[in-house]
Amino acid sequence: MSKLYLVGMGPGDERLITPLASAVIAQCSDVVAYGLYLDLLADMTTGKHCHDLPLGEEIGRARLALDLAASGKATALVSSGDIGIYAMATLVFELLDQQLNGAENHPEWLAVDIEVVPGISAMQAAASRVGAMLGHDFCTISLSDLLTPWPVIEQRLHGAGSGDFVVSFYNPVSKKRDWQLNSARDILLQYRPANTPVVIGRQLTRSDEDIRFTRLGDLKANDVDMFTLVSVGNRETRHIVNGSKEWIYTPRGYASKA
Amino acid sequence: MSKLYLVGMGPGDERLITPLASAVIAQCSDVVAYGLYLDLLADMTTGKHCHDLPLGEEIGRARLALDLAASGKATALVSSGDIGIYAMATLVFELLDQQLNGAENHPEWLAVDIEVVPGISAMQAAASRVGAMLGHDFCTISLSDLLTPWPVIEQRLHGAGSGDFVVSFYNPVSKKRDWQLNSARDILLQYRPANTPVVIGRQLTRSDEDIRFTRLGDLKANDVDMFTLVSVGNRETRHIVNGSKEWIYTPRGYASKA
Repeated sequence: MSKLYLVGMGPGDERLITPLASAVIAQCSDVVAYGLYLDLLADMTTGKHCHDLPLGEEIGRARLALDLAASGKATALVSSGDIGIYAMATLVFELLDQQLNGAENHPEWLAVDIEVVPGISAMQAAASRVGAMLGHDFCTISLSDLLTPWPVIEQRLHGAGSGDFVVSFYNPVSKKRDWQLNSARDILLQYRPANTPVVIGRQLTRSDEDIRFTRLGDLKANDVDMFTLVSVGNRETRHIVNGSKEWIYTPRGYASKA
Repeated sequence: MSKLYLVGMGPGDERLITPLASAVIAQCSDVVAYGLYLDLLADMTTGKHCHDLPLGEEIGRARLALDLAASGKATALVSSGDIGIYAMATLVFELLDQQLNGAENHPEWLAVDIEVVPGISAMQAAASRVGAMLGHDFCTISLSDLLTPWPVIEQRLHGAGSGDFVVSFYNPVSKKRDWQLNSARDILLQYRPANTPVVIGRQLTRSDEDIRFTRLGDLKANDVDMFTLVSVGNRETRHIVNGSKEWIYTPRGYASKA
């Protein structure tokens, strides 16, 4: 049976690529990815057919992966982080769904055996670098309003605020989206204090990693770019300083204040 | 400098233990864990001092790990999943915080160099097994009211419902907690339909893994035990059937309904 692996490669550090991810890529003749990831994976993809489609061609990449697998080539579609979290896996299943609904004309896709390999996501990398920010209930919100209308995102921000979740923002800004993070900050400030700890993590676990600590009231979209993850603590999250080291952690419960 | 690694070992499958986790454990003379994990790690801990404390002794395990590291022994405190997510890492930082506040008398802890190694969490394992359940914004909620008062958890459930997050329940039930999951279901049913897809994943990625698909309206605490993760879709999450295979995925956006 033709095989398609959907593989998350983790945040960047090669030592965070799971052995399962490495093993399934080794079994494949074809690898589909955004070019930048293929560069990072050069050692793992020697001798394989690498299919590079630019950013913005996500649906095209999912189609290509299904087509290659359906043609009998063992194929890996790879992304950074966890391919199941804000990444390519869901697009593959959307295409299958459309085929099942008759909106596509690729019955051969339905014969492809699909296996998903999870990976370490950016929020986990950020939390581990600063301590234990995700120690209690948390949520993720993408601030990209390209596919989700802003009023839906606003509703979600209010849910995150009223529920007092630790919040990790994916896609916090882009060249064309420069105000959403500031609006998100202002909504969260309705629910938690201005001195709530925030971490801004750029190029996490990579050689040019940059991690900054700030406070919710001081968070500005101008300090963030599209390679950045932003995590905002909940009302219990603590910032502690031990000499030259500082940490952020979220306690397990609320009992200490009860 | 004395060294303490806080290491997440992933959901159970050895191929999901990151090379970084394996490497840091290899460097340690002492490993602290719950006994069941030590059994799973037998190959990696040969020749090391293994310190087993039973479930319920979490604070004791964190203290022991800090004590061992402070005494000069390279030490790994390990847990399944991601040690930063509902696990031991935050307890270590809570103890450091108490020492910094003068509530402990272990100044030697402050000289320990701490490094956190993230791991694949249960929600990611579940999502990957069923397709792409975490394809859009999601949250996690622990249903344990031992440390968090139930009214706080209820408020969080309403936030998850009004924000339409995909919700993963950690600690859904225990021997002493048998009604919380049913209450959580009833709260979410105020916000999303009874046919919302749900996955019940037990012993994920292990040899006795059991994965069941159900609907929110049919979710019952009786069908779940303490080795189980429950994930509930959002209003867009889809359950699709392709012959003998079935999948659950959450689309990236809301534009298709706009």
